[in-house]
Amino acid sequence: MTRFLILYNKPDDVDAFERHYNETHIPLAKKMAGLRRYTISRNVVAIPGGEPYYLVAELDWDDRAVLQRALESHEGQATAQDLADHLARRSPGVRSMIYEVEDV
Amino acid sequence: MTRFLILYNKPDDVDAFERHYNETHIPLAKKMAGLRRYTISRNVVAIPGGEPYYLVAELDWDDRAVLQRALESHEGQATAQDLADHLARRSPGVRSMIYEVEDV
Repeated sequence: MTRFLILYNKPDDVDAFERHYNETHIPLAKKMAGLRRYTISRNVVAIPGGEPYYLVAELDWDDRAVLQRALESHEGQATAQDLADHLARRSPGVRSMIYEVEDV
Repeated sequence: MTRFLILYNKPDDVDAFERHYNETHIPLAKKMAGLRRYTISRNVVAIPGGEPYYLVAELDWDDRAVLQRALESHEGQATAQDLADHLARRSPGVRSMIYEVEDV
């Protein structure tokens, strides 16, 4: 399984971020082909302390080739553009990465 | 489901970090009661770019109460101590947080 992990810092305007994320970004992202699972975090708490990320989003595909095709598709480009144009501006320092998930 | 997410920056000494992580830390962490799944990342790539975390570890429990008991147990304390004493020293800026995982 290949995961796309997105780590958002606390937004400047939480209500506006949440509204955009829920009403626009999630519907866009869910159009990507091959998406197996899409989860978000609730009630993030830093352990042992410090500042946690505000939102952890995890999107799973069967493998990297399918994810790569999804990212390059029209739907993937629209989702990335929405993140860059709206979410990243409200949550500076957002970090995102992809990796294979391996059980230990 | 409640997830414990640990984000490691690139270690100063990758070989020493890997050796300690695989030979000492994983066996310690797996002793924690109620641990449902423990995955680590392979081949992390930052998208769209920049520096990715070196290692993303995700440990899942049924709920926050079970996770909390695991963290407070002898095994949980030993795992946390090993992280602080060995892994965090080799990977400065390690971040860890817990949250509920919600499907969207």
